Amino acid sequence: MEPHIESNEMQKKVHEWISQFKEGYWEPHVMVSTLTEEVGEVARAINHIHGPKKQKEGENEVTLSDELADVLFVLICIANEHKISLSDAFEKNMRKKYGRDNDRFEKK
Amino acid sequence: MEPHIESNEMQKKVHEWISQFKEGYWEPHVMVSTLTEEVGEVARAINHIHGPKKQKEGENEVTLSDELADVLFVLICIANEHKISLSDAFEKNMRKKYGRDNDRFEKK
Amino acid sequence: MEPHIESNEMQKKVHEWISQFKEGYWEPHVMVSTLTEEVGEVARAINHIHGPKKQKEGENEVTLSDELADVLFVLICIANEHKISLSDAFEKNMRKKYGRDNDRFEKK
Amino acid sequence: MEPHIESNEMQKKVHEWISQFKEGYWEPHVMVSTLTEEVGEVARAINHIHGPKKQKEGENEVTLSDELADVLFVLICIANEHKISLSDAFEKNMRKKYGRDNDRFEKK
Repeated sequence: MEPHIESNEMQKKVHEWISQFKEGYWEPHVMVSTLTEEVGEVARAINHIHGPKKQKEGENEVTLSDELADVLFVLICIANEHKISLSDAFEKNMRKKYGRDNDRFEKK
Repeated sequence: MEPHIESNEMQKKVHEWISQFKEGYWEPHVMVSTLTEEVGEVARAINHIHGPKKQKEGENEVTLSDELADVLFVLICIANEHKISLSDAFEKNMRKKYGRDNDRFEKK
Repeated sequence: MEPHIESNEMQKKVHEWISQFKEGYWEPHVMVSTLTEEVGEVARAINHIHGPKKQKEGENEVTLSDELADVLFVLICIANEHKISLSDAFEKNMRKKYGRDNDRFEKK
Repeated sequence: MEPHIESNEMQKKVHEWISQFKEGYWEPHVMVSTLTEEVGEVARAINHIHGPKKQKEGENEVTLSDELADVLFVLICIANEHKISLSDAFEKNMRKKYGRDNDRFEKK
Protein backbone atom coordinates (compact mmCIF):
# COMPACT_ATOMS: atom_id res chain seq x y z
CA MET A 1 0.00 0.00 0.00
CA GLU A 2 1.85 3.08 -1.21
CA PRO A 3 0.80 6.45 0.19
CA HIS A 4 2.17 7.97 -3.02
CA ILE A 5 -0.54 6.29 -5.05
CA GLU A 6 -3.15 7.13 -2.45
CA SER A 7 -3.08 10.87 -2.43
CA ASN A 8 -2.34 10.88 -6.16
CA GLU A 9 -5.72 9.21 -6.47
CA MET A 10 -7.38 12.18 -4.78
CA GLN A 11 -5.39 14.60 -6.91
CA LYS A 12 -6.55 12.72 -10.02
CA LYS A 13 -10.18 12.91 -8.95
CA VAL A 14 -9.95 16.65 -8.40
CA HIS A 15 -8.26 17.04 -11.76
CA GLU A 16 -11.07 15.10 -13.45
CA TRP A 17 -13.63 17.37 -11.81
CA ILE A 18 -11.87 20.60 -12.75
CA SER A 19 -11.10 19.38 -16.28
CA GLN A 20 -14.79 19.29 -17.13
CA PHE A 21 -14.99 23.06 -17.08
CA LYS A 22 -13.79 25.68 -19.54
CA GLU A 23 -12.60 27.79 -16.65
CA GLY A 24 -10.10 25.20 -15.42
CA TYR A 25 -7.98 25.94 -12.36
CA TRP A 26 -8.35 29.41 -10.91
CA GLU A 27 -5.47 31.83 -10.83
CA PRO A 28 -3.18 31.11 -7.81
CA HIS A 29 -4.08 34.22 -5.77
CA VAL A 30 -7.75 33.37 -6.24
CA MET A 31 -7.00 29.87 -4.94
CA VAL A 32 -5.36 31.41 -1.84
CA SER A 33 -8.45 33.57 -1.25
CA THR A 34 -10.56 30.45 -1.50
CA LEU A 35 -8.22 28.58 0.83
CA THR A 36 -8.53 31.46 3.32
CA GLU A 37 -12.30 31.33 3.06
CA GLU A 38 -12.42 27.58 3.71
CA VAL A 39 -9.93 27.74 6.57
CA GLY A 40 -12.19 30.39 8.09
CA GLU A 41 -15.01 27.84 7.98
CA VAL A 42 -12.86 25.31 9.83
CA ALA A 43 -12.12 27.97 12.48
CA ARG A 44 -15.82 28.69 12.76
CA ALA A 45 -16.64 24.98 13.15
CA ILE A 46 -14.02 24.65 15.90
CA ASN A 47 -15.38 27.75 17.63
CA HIS A 48 -18.87 26.23 17.49
CA ILE A 49 -17.85 22.84 18.79
CA HIS A 50 -15.34 23.88 21.44
CA GLY A 51 -16.57 27.38 22.27
CA PRO A 52 -16.74 30.23 22.85
CA LYS A 53 -19.23 31.17 20.12
CA LYS A 54 -22.80 30.34 20.85
CA GLN A 55 -24.37 29.04 17.68
CA LYS A 56 -26.77 31.68 16.36
CA GLU A 57 -30.43 30.85 15.87
CA GLY A 58 -31.08 29.64 12.33
CA GLU A 59 -27.46 29.04 11.55
CA ASN A 60 -27.00 25.70 9.84
CA GLU A 61 -25.20 23.16 11.88
CA VAL A 62 -21.60 23.36 10.94
CA THR A 63 -19.94 20.14 9.98
CA LEU A 64 -16.26 20.19 10.70
CA SER A 65 -15.81 17.16 8.48
CA ASP A 66 -17.17 18.99 5.41
CA GLU A 67 -15.05 22.03 6.11
CA LEU A 68 -11.87 19.96 6.39
CA ALA A 69 -12.72 18.33 3.05
CA ASP A 70 -13.23 21.77 1.50
CA VAL A 71 -9.77 22.83 2.66
CA LEU A 72 -8.30 19.57 1.36
CA PHE A 73 -9.98 20.15 -2.03
CA VAL A 74 -8.44 23.63 -2.39
CA LEU A 75 -5.07 22.32 -1.18
CA ILE A 76 -5.16 19.68 -3.91
CA CYS A 77 -6.11 22.30 -6.53
CA ILE A 78 -3.08 24.40 -5.58
CA ALA A 79 -0.88 21.28 -5.65
CA ASN A 80 -2.26 20.22 -9.03
CA GLU A 81 -1.75 23.56 -10.71
CA HIS A 82 1.86 23.58 -9.54
CA LYS A 83 2.51 19.93 -10.50
CA ILE A 84 3.18 19.03 -6.87
CA SER A 85 2.55 15.54 -5.50
CA LEU A 86 0.97 16.01 -2.09
CA SER A 87 1.90 12.52 -0.97
CA ASP A 88 5.55 13.01 -1.92
CA ALA A 89 5.43 16.33 -0.06
CA PHE A 90 3.76 14.62 2.90
CA GLU A 91 6.36 11.86 3.07
CA LYS A 92 9.23 14.34 2.81
CA ASN A 93 7.57 16.34 5.59
CA MET A 94 7.30 13.30 7.87
CA ARG A 95 10.94 12.37 7.21
CA LYS A 96 11.95 15.94 8.13
CA LYS A 97 9.86 15.71 11.31
CA TYR A 98 11.52 12.46 12.33
CA GLY A 99 14.91 13.99 11.63
CA ARG A 100 14.53 17.51 12.95
CA ASP A 101 11.70 17.63 15.44
CA ASN A 102 12.07 14.23 16.98
CA ASP A 103 13.41 15.65 20.24
CA ARG A 104 11.38 18.82 20.19
CA PHE A 105 8.74 17.52 22.57
CA GLU A 106 8.99 15.25 25.58
CA LYS A 107 8.69 11.57 24.72
CA LYS A 108 6.28 9.33 26.57
CA MET B 1 -6.94 0.77 -4.49
CA GLU B 2 -9.41 2.49 -2.25
CA PRO B 3 -8.95 6.21 -1.55
CA HIS B 4 -10.45 5.47 1.86
CA ILE B 5 -7.48 3.35 2.80
CA GLU B 6 -5.06 5.81 1.23
CA SER B 7 -5.67 8.88 3.23
CA ASN B 8 -6.26 6.75 6.32
CA GLU B 9 -2.66 5.69 5.79
CA MET B 10 -1.55 9.31 6.12
CA GLN B 11 -3.77 9.81 9.13
CA LYS B 12 -2.21 6.72 10.73
CA LYS B 13 1.30 8.01 10.10
CA VAL B 14 0.49 11.33 11.72
CA HIS B 15 -1.07 9.53 14.64
CA GLU B 16 2.08 7.42 15.09
CA TRP B 17 4.19 10.57 15.10
CA ILE B 18 2.01 12.41 17.60
CA SER B 19 1.60 9.33 19.82
CA GLN B 20 5.30 9.34 20.64
CA PHE B 21 4.94 12.47 22.70
CA LYS B 22 3.50 13.07 26.14
CA GLU B 23 1.89 16.23 24.87
CA GLY B 24 -0.27 14.43 22.33
CA TYR B 25 -2.63 16.43 20.10
CA TRP B 26 -2.82 20.12 20.84
CA GLU B 27 -6.03 21.71 22.00
CA PRO B 28 -8.34 22.47 19.01
CA HIS B 29 -7.97 26.28 19.07
CA VAL B 30 -4.21 25.87 19.14
CA MET B 31 -4.51 23.63 16.08
CA VAL B 32 -6.50 26.36 14.31
CA SER B 33 -3.79 28.92 15.16
CA THR B 34 -1.23 26.54 13.72
CA LEU B 35 -3.39 25.96 10.63
CA THR B 36 -3.62 29.75 10.20
CA GLU B 37 0.15 30.05 10.51
CA GLU B 38 0.78 27.36 7.90
CA VAL B 39 -1.84 28.72 5.49
CA GLY B 40 -0.06 32.07 5.81
CA GLU B 41 3.10 30.33 4.62
CA VAL B 42 1.27 28.98 1.57
CA ALA B 43 0.05 32.52 0.83
CA ARG B 44 3.60 33.81 1.16
CA ALA B 45 4.92 31.12 -1.19
CA ILE B 46 2.25 31.99 -3.78
CA ASN B 47 3.08 35.70 -3.42
CA HIS B 48 6.74 34.88 -3.99
CA ILE B 49 6.17 32.68 -7.01
CA HIS B 50 3.42 34.65 -8.74
CA GLY B 51 4.11 38.16 -7.42
CA PRO B 52 3.84 40.84 -6.29
CA LYS B 53 6.28 40.46 -3.39
CA LYS B 54 9.91 40.69 -4.26
CA GLN B 55 11.77 38.08 -2.32
CA LYS B 56 13.79 39.79 0.39
CA GLU B 57 17.54 39.36 0.55
CA GLY B 58 18.49 36.49 2.84
CA GLU B 59 15.07 34.99 2.97
CA ASN B 60 15.22 31.27 2.44
CA GLU B 61 13.70 30.12 -0.77
CA VAL B 62 10.15 29.23 0.01
CA THR B 63 9.03 25.84 -1.10
CA LEU B 64 5.34 25.77 -1.85
CA SER B 65 5.44 21.98 -1.73
CA ASP B 66 6.65 21.98 1.90
CA GLU B 67 4.10 24.54 2.92
CA LEU B 68 1.25 22.54 1.39
CA ALA B 69 2.46 19.48 3.29
CA ASP B 70 2.54 21.51 6.51
CA VAL B 71 -1.10 22.50 6.00
CA LEU B 72 -2.01 18.90 5.19
CA PHE B 73 -0.29 17.75 8.39
CA VAL B 74 -2.30 20.15 10.55
CA LEU B 75 -5.49 19.26 8.68
CA ILE B 76 -4.88 15.60 9.48
CA CYS B 77 -4.21 16.43 13.15
CA ILE B 78 -7.56 18.22 13.38
CA ALA B 79 -9.28 15.31 11.62
CA ASN B 80 -7.60 12.77 13.89
CA GLU B 81 -8.50 14.49 17.12
CA HIS B 82 -12.14 14.63 16.01
CA LYS B 83 -12.20 11.01 14.74
CA ILE B 84 -12.89 12.20 11.19
CA SER B 85 -11.83 10.19 8.15
CA LEU B 86 -10.48 12.72 5.66
CA SER B 87 -10.94 10.36 2.73
CA ASP B 88 -14.57 9.70 3.62
CA ALA B 89 -15.03 13.46 3.94
CA PHE B 90 -13.26 13.95 0.62
CA GLU B 91 -15.43 11.40 -1.18
CA LYS B 92 -18.61 12.88 0.27
CA ASN B 93 -17.40 16.30 -0.83
CA MET B 94 -16.78 15.11 -4.40
CA ARG B 95 -20.22 13.46 -4.55
CA LYS B 96 -21.77 16.74 -3.38
CA LYS B 97 -19.83 18.64 -6.03
CA TYR B 98 -21.03 16.28 -8.78
CA GLY B 99 -24.57 16.65 -7.49
CA ARG B 100 -24.77 20.33 -6.62
CA ASP B 101 -22.13 22.23 -8.51
CA ASN B 102 -22.03 20.25 -11.70
CA ASP B 103 -23.71 23.03 -13.67
CA ARG B 104 -22.17 25.90 -11.74
CA PHE B 105 -19.49 26.57 -14.32
CA GLU B 106 -19.52 26.36 -18.09
CA LYS B 107 -18.63 22.92 -19.43
CA LYS B 108 -15.99 22.46 -22.11
CA MET C 1 -5.07 65.60 15.26
CA GLU C 2 -2.92 62.79 16.57
CA PRO C 3 -3.41 59.33 15.08
CA HIS C 4 -2.24 57.98 18.43
CA ILE C 5 -5.35 59.29 20.12
CA GLU C 6 -7.53 58.16 17.25
CA SER C 7 -7.01 54.47 17.25
CA ASN C 8 -6.74 54.52 21.05
CA GLU C 9 -10.31 55.77 20.91
CA MET C 10 -11.36 52.62 19.06
CA GLN C 11 -9.39 50.46 21.46
CA LYS C 12 -11.15 52.14 24.37
CA LYS C 13 -14.58 51.54 22.85
CA VAL C 14 -13.81 47.85 22.36
CA HIS C 15 -12.54 47.65 25.93
CA GLU C 16 -15.77 49.22 27.21
CA TRP C 17 -17.79 46.68 25.26
CA ILE C 18 -15.79 43.68 26.47
CA SER C 19 -15.65 44.95 30.05
CA GLN C 20 -19.40 44.58 30.42
CA PHE C 21 -19.14 40.80 30.37
CA LYS C 22 -17.98 38.33 32.97
CA GLU C 23 -16.19 36.41 30.28
CA GLY C 24 -13.86 39.28 29.37
CA TYR C 25 -11.28 38.83 26.63
CA TRP C 26 -11.04 35.37 25.18
CA GLU C 27 -7.92 33.30 25.51
CA PRO C 28 -5.35 34.31 22.80
CA HIS C 29 -5.62 31.14 20.69
CA VAL C 30 -9.40 31.54 20.66
CA MET C 31 -8.91 35.11 19.43
CA VAL C 32 -6.71 33.80 16.60
CA SER C 33 -9.41 31.29 15.64
CA THR C 34 -11.89 34.14 15.58
CA LEU C 35 -9.51 36.29 13.56
CA THR C 36 -9.14 33.41 11.08
CA GLU C 37 -12.91 33.09 10.85
CA GLU C 38 -13.39 36.79 10.16
CA VAL C 39 -10.55 36.96 7.64
CA GLY C 40 -12.25 34.07 5.86
CA GLU C 41 -15.35 36.26 5.59
CA VAL C 42 -13.31 39.05 4.00
CA ALA C 43 -11.93 36.52 1.51
CA ARG C 44 -15.45 35.36 0.75
CA ALA C 45 -16.65 38.94 0.22
CA ILE C 46 -13.75 39.61 -2.16
CA ASN C 47 -14.49 36.37 -4.03
CA HIS C 48 -18.12 37.47 -4.36
CA ILE C 49 -17.35 40.98 -5.54
CA HIS C 50 -14.40 40.24 -7.83
CA GLY C 51 -15.11 36.63 -8.79
CA PRO C 52 -14.85 33.79 -9.39
CA LYS C 53 -17.56 32.55 -7.01
CA LYS C 54 -21.06 33.02 -8.22
CA GLN C 55 -23.20 34.12 -5.32
CA LYS C 56 -25.49 31.27 -4.33
CA GLU C 57 -29.26 31.72 -4.34
CA GLY C 58 -30.49 32.76 -0.90
CA GLU C 59 -27.10 33.78 0.35
CA ASN C 60 -27.24 37.10 2.11
CA GLU C 61 -25.49 39.87 0.32
CA VAL C 62 -22.04 40.04 1.72
CA THR C 63 -20.88 43.40 2.89
CA LEU C 64 -17.15 43.75 2.67
CA SER C 65 -17.36 46.78 4.89
CA ASP C 66 -18.88 44.77 7.78
CA GLU C 67 -16.34 42.02 7.38
CA LEU C 68 -13.43 44.45 7.50
CA ALA C 69 -14.88 45.94 10.69
CA ASP C 70 -15.16 42.45 12.19
CA VAL C 71 -11.49 41.83 11.50
CA LEU C 72 -10.60 45.23 12.95
CA PHE C 73 -12.61 44.42 16.08
CA VAL C 74 -10.73 41.17 16.68
CA LEU C 75 -7.41 42.86 15.90
CA ILE C 76 -8.18 45.44 18.57
CA CYS C 77 -9.13 42.73 21.07
CA ILE C 78 -5.78 41.01 20.53
CA ALA C 79 -3.99 44.36 20.86
CA ASN C 80 -5.91 45.23 24.03
CA GLU C 81 -5.24 41.97 25.78
CA HIS C 82 -1.53 42.37 25.09
CA LYS C 83 -1.44 46.08 26.10
CA ILE C 84 -0.43 47.07 22.58
CA SER C 85 -1.30 50.47 21.12
CA LEU C 86 -2.36 49.84 17.54
CA SER C 87 -1.71 53.43 16.50
CA ASP C 88 1.82 53.36 17.92
CA ALA C 89 2.34 50.07 16.10
CA PHE C 90 0.87 51.59 12.94
CA GLU C 91 3.12 54.65 13.09
CA LYS C 92 6.21 52.53 13.71
CA ASN C 93 5.17 50.36 10.77
CA MET C 94 4.83 53.37 8.47
CA ARG C 95 8.21 54.73 9.56
CA LYS C 96 9.76 51.32 8.79
CA LYS C 97 8.08 51.31 5.39
CA TYR C 98 9.45 54.77 4.57
CA GLY C 99 12.89 53.64 5.70
CA ARG C 100 13.12 50.12 4.36
CA ASP C 101 10.69 49.67 1.54
CA ASN C 102 10.81 53.12 0.03
CA ASP C 103 12.72 51.89 -3.01
CA ARG C 104 11.10 48.49 -3.20
CA PHE C 105 8.64 49.47 -5.90
CA GLU C 106 9.00 51.78 -8.88
CA LYS C 107 8.15 55.38 -8.11
CA LYS C 108 5.72 57.32 -10.27
CA MET D 1 -12.39 63.97 18.95
CA GLU D 2 -14.26 62.06 16.31
CA PRO D 3 -13.26 58.43 15.69
CA HIS D 4 -14.38 58.99 12.11
CA ILE D 5 -11.56 61.44 11.54
CA GLU D 6 -9.13 59.22 13.41
CA SER D 7 -9.11 56.13 11.33
CA ASN D 8 -9.53 58.23 8.19
CA GLU D 9 -6.20 59.71 9.18
CA MET D 10 -4.59 56.27 9.02
CA GLN D 11 -6.33 55.53 5.74
CA LYS D 12 -4.97 58.79 4.34
CA LYS D 13 -1.43 57.93 5.42
CA VAL D 14 -1.63 54.55 3.75
CA HIS D 15 -3.01 56.18 0.62
CA GLU D 16 -0.11 58.66 0.57
CA TRP D 17 2.35 55.80 0.86
CA ILE D 18 0.76 53.72 -1.89
CA SER D 19 0.26 56.73 -4.16
CA GLN D 20 4.01 57.18 -4.51
CA PHE D 21 4.31 54.04 -6.58
CA LYS D 22 3.41 53.29 -10.18
CA GLU D 23 2.03 49.95 -9.09
CA GLY D 24 -0.64 51.47 -6.84
CA TYR D 25 -2.99 49.18 -4.91
CA TRP D 26 -2.64 45.49 -5.65
CA GLU D 27 -5.45 43.53 -7.20
CA PRO D 28 -8.01 42.48 -4.51
CA HIS D 29 -7.19 38.74 -4.52
CA VAL D 30 -3.53 39.61 -4.09
CA MET D 31 -4.49 41.78 -1.12
CA VAL D 32 -6.35 38.81 0.41
CA SER D 33 -3.27 36.61 -0.08
CA THR D 34 -1.22 39.25 1.67
CA LEU D 35 -3.80 39.55 4.45
CA THR D 36 -3.63 35.76 4.88
CA GLU D 37 0.16 35.92 5.06
CA GLU D 38 0.11 38.64 7.72
CA VAL D 39 -2.61 36.94 9.77
CA GLY D 40 -0.42 33.84 9.70
CA GLU D 41 2.33 35.94 11.29
CA VAL D 42 -0.02 37.03 14.06
CA ALA D 43 -0.90 33.37 14.67
CA ARG D 44 2.79 32.51 14.80
CA ALA D 45 3.47 35.33 17.29
CA ILE D 46 0.62 34.12 19.51
CA ASN D 47 1.91 30.54 19.28
CA HIS D 48 5.35 31.78 20.32
CA ILE D 49 4.14 33.88 23.22
CA HIS D 50 1.44 31.58 24.60
CA GLY D 51 2.70 28.19 23.41
CA PRO D 52 2.90 25.51 22.30
CA LYS D 53 5.64 26.21 19.74
CA LYS D 54 9.12 26.41 21.12
CA GLN D 55 10.91 29.22 19.39
CA LYS D 56 13.50 27.76 17.05
CA GLU D 57 17.16 28.63 17.43
CA GLY D 58 18.07 31.59 15.24
CA GLU D 59 14.54 32.65 14.61
CA ASN D 60 14.12 36.37 15.09
CA GLU D 61 12.08 37.37 18.06
CA VAL D 62 8.58 37.83 16.86
CA THR D 63 6.91 41.05 17.74
CA LEU D 64 3.17 40.69 17.96
CA SER D 65 2.82 44.45 17.81
CA ASP D 66 4.48 44.62 14.36
CA GLU D 67 2.39 41.77 13.06
CA LEU D 68 -0.85 43.42 14.18
CA ALA D 69 0.23 46.63 12.44
CA ASP D 70 0.96 44.64 9.26
CA VAL D 71 -2.57 43.23 9.31
CA LEU D 72 -4.00 46.69 9.96
CA PHE D 73 -2.04 48.06 7.01
CA VAL D 74 -3.43 45.46 4.62
CA LEU D 75 -6.92 45.93 6.06
CA ILE D 76 -6.67 49.64 5.32
CA CYS D 77 -5.44 48.94 1.78
CA ILE D 78 -8.48 46.76 1.11
CA ALA D 79 -10.76 49.42 2.63
CA ASN D 80 -9.12 52.17 0.56
CA GLU D 81 -9.39 50.38 -2.74
CA HIS D 82 -13.09 49.79 -2.10
CA LYS D 83 -13.76 53.36 -0.88
CA ILE D 84 -14.74 52.06 2.55
CA SER D 85 -14.32 54.17 5.68
CA LEU D 86 -13.01 51.81 8.35
CA SER D 87 -14.14 54.07 11.17
CA ASP D 88 -17.68 54.29 9.81
CA ALA D 89 -17.62 50.51 9.46
CA PHE D 90 -16.25 50.20 13.00
CA GLU D 91 -18.93 52.46 14.48
CA LYS D 92 -21.70 50.62 12.63
CA ASN D 93 -20.24 47.36 13.91
CA MET D 94 -20.24 48.58 17.52
CA ARG D 95 -23.83 49.80 17.21
CA LYS D 96 -24.82 46.37 15.86
CA LYS D 97 -23.01 44.71 18.76
CA TYR D 98 -24.83 46.86 21.32
CA GLY D 99 -28.12 46.06 19.60
CA ARG D 100 -27.75 42.41 18.73
CA ASP D 101 -25.14 40.83 20.92
CA ASN D 102 -25.70 42.78 24.09
CA ASP D 103 -27.29 39.79 25.82
CA ARG D 104 -25.17 37.17 24.15
CA PHE D 105 -22.79 36.82 27.06
CA GLU D 106 -23.34 36.99 30.78
CA LYS D 107 -23.06 40.50 32.18
CA LYS D 108 -20.88 41.25 35.18
